[in-house]
Formats: sequence, C-alpha cells, structure tokens
Amino acid sequence: MAGKFITLEGGEGAGKTTQARLIKSYFEESGFDVVLTREPGGVPEAEKIRNLLVQRDGGNWTPMAECLLFFAARQMHVETLIKPAVAEGKIVICDRFTDSTVAYQGYGHGFDLDTIRQIEALTLGGFSPDLTFLLDIPVKDGIGRSLKHNNSAPGDENKEDRFERLDVSFHERLRQGFLDLAKKNPERIRVVDARQSAELVFGEICAAL
Amino acid sequence: MAGKFITLEGGEGAGKTTQARLIKSYFEESGFDVVLTREPGGVPEAEKIRNLLVQRDGGNWTPMAECLLFFAARQMHVETLIKPAVAEGKIVICDRFTDSTVAYQGYGHGFDLDTIRQIEALTLGGFSPDLTFLLDIPVKDGIGRSLKHNNSAPGDENKEDRFERLDVSFHERLRQGFLDLAKKNPERIRVVDARQSAELVFGEICAAL
Repeated sequence: MAGKFITLEGGEGAGKTTQARLIKSYFEESGFDVVLTREPGGVPEAEKIRNLLVQRDGGNWTPMAECLLFFAARQMHVETLIKPAVAEGKIVICDRFTDSTVAYQGYGHGFDLDTIRQIEALTLGGFSPDLTFLLDIPVKDGIGRSLKHNNSAPGDENKEDRFERLDVSFHERLRQGFLDLAKKNPERIRVVDARQSAELVFGEICAAL
Repeated sequence: MAGKFITLEGGEGAGKTTQARLIKSYFEESGFDVVLTREPGGVPEAEKIRNLLVQRDGGNWTPMAECLLFFAARQMHVETLIKPAVAEGKIVICDRFTDSTVAYQGYGHGFDLDTIRQIEALTLGGFSPDLTFLLDIPVKDGIGRSLKHNNSAPGDENKEDRFERLDVSFHERLRQGFLDLAKKNPERIRVVDARQSAELVFGEICAAL
C-alpha cells in the first residue's frame, strides 16, 4: 500500500515543528513508518543548497536564481527521499514545500507567480502533497512567538534567520498568500487556527487525519 | 555603444582557455574593455554553485537538479555581470555557456533537450551570445591533450575533473552534439578546426572577428 505525503505550512512562529513531531507520534502509534523531513533540504544535496539560500553568507541571489535553487533542492528531495518512502508505504511529513515558495517568493517578494508555476510543472511534473495543514496565525502573534523562541534557544536560528529579518508588511503578504492558496486548493489544504494551544491545534489536525 | 558577448565552446582539450586569452588581447589592443569569464561560475554566487557541480564531494545530483543548478548559476552570471558589461560597451568573452549544458547534459547524458530549452527560455528569456566559436577536435586528440595538460600542471583540475572522467562514447556524443548545435545555428556558431596549432586557430577566429 502506498503511504502518504503530508506537509505543514505557515509563517514564522506558527508551531509547524511542534505539530510535525506530534503527527509523527500519532502515525507511529498506529504502526506506520514515518519520515520527518523539511525544506529547503531533507537530503544531503538539498541541504547544501539550503546553506546557499538561508545563511547570511550564502549570497545575494536574484529572485529567479533563488527560485531555481529552491526547485533544484525540492526535485532532489522528491526523487531521492519523498517518492521512494511513499512508495514503500511510509508516511512522509515535511515542514514546508512548494506552497512556501509560492507564498514567500511569489506573494511575499513579488516574483511572478506564473513563472514559479511553470518551473514547478517542469521540475515536479504535477507531484504535490496528499494533504497540507496551513497553521494560520496573525502576523503580530507569529512574530512575537518566533522572537521568544529564538531568544530562549539560540542556535541554528541565529545563522538561518534570514526569513525572519523581513518586515511586517512582508509577513502580511505572506499570510494572505497562504490563505489564498488554501482557498484555491480546498481539497488539499486545511487551515488550522494556530493561535490556539498546541494541544488544540493538534486536536484539529487529528480530526482531519 | 553596446558591447558584444562572445562564447567559446568545445570538448576537453580543445584549447578554449588559450583562445579566450588571445581574443582578450586582440580586443584590448583595439582599445576595448574586455571581461574574461567562465561557466559554470563567473560571479561569486555562481561560483558557489560551480563548487556543488564540479567537485567530487559536490553531490550525486539528479539530471534535473543539475540542469536547474546550471541555469541558476547562469542567470546570476547573465544578470549581474554579462548584461551590465555589454550595456557599458564591453566585450565579454565567456568560456562555456548554454551550448555546453545542451551538449553535456542533453546530447552527452541524455537529459531531455526540450526540457533544457524550456528551462533556458524561462530563465534567460532568449538571451544568447552574439558570436560563438566552437573549437572542434576529434575525441582521441582532445582527451590526449587534456590528460597531458593535467599531468603537467596538476592543480584545481584534480578536484574539478568530473567532466574528464567520462568515457569515450560520452565524448563522441558530446562532439556530435556541439556540431549539431553549430549546424542549427550557423549565424551564431563558427566551427574552428582545433587540431591546428593555437596560432592557426587564432588566425581563423580573427578572420571571423
């Protein structure tokens, strides 16, 4: 039996990492093999691209080059990890996927949405998640949580905080972009109110699963 | 007055580097500003991608991811170096460009030529060299020269010899690919017999310039 490919999406501080771990436990307790992964990255080659994209010294990329790098990493991830695992009946849970590229590079930074869709079609040939949870949170709440999180656990985030140094209007465009994607893909994307406690958010996710 | 964008193409050991330097001197003596560059690479961001592509520890890329990385590097190179320099009236001489991706990844490795062309159209929007010199040499002669060169000057080549560890039939497909490209683009691509001495090759190039 084929497995499932489930993604988590949302802005900063929405609690994707916590929910990813909870979903993993949920499926493992039901006897499934679960792979927890993330983007950009997830396989060694894609993690090298991640380093170019998210670290401060990675480079000053043009929007087009950035988009190509995201899809190069994603295509490696899909072909070498996600598709094989799903074919073996595993549940693959991924923190961010194509929706994030559309929301961040497209809605957020203004890179042409149609160009992103053409690159997606060329590189992934229609491959998309079976189910996506969009953890939606008002921008102010999300940024507040994200900053608190970074202060209490300084680590990788200090090097990889490029995405978090962007302004509030950017995060507003990002949130509306995600919500727009959810409206256009109601069969695949479930919007969950991420202002709730982690337990209540997970309760909503379990109901959908 | 706008400058010109000139590329050098060909397999291993064809003498591209030597000819690039000679063409540079030729234009400088005529009072032009000349930029000598190369692919993959040419600008800092693209050189980072080059490291992923050509070094042994760079990774085991899927053909699609490899193609996206080449075009990500190329788009950075075109937008941040080549186009601005040409707009300022400079002569830009580049060692390899899109023809090499078509010849190596397409004709050589069998990656779908139409997909390469679609990625090229999306990323470069029709931008191409004003003039290309294809330094053509029979495979046996080219590999012989290339090995001699590497033995007499071991250096970067030892780390970046991925392209040279490929088999003879690959190099044959590569050569026919380049010749096919020249046949299809007679206005842009001049084929030069690279079995001749460097002086005679340069003589043919000067005649075309």
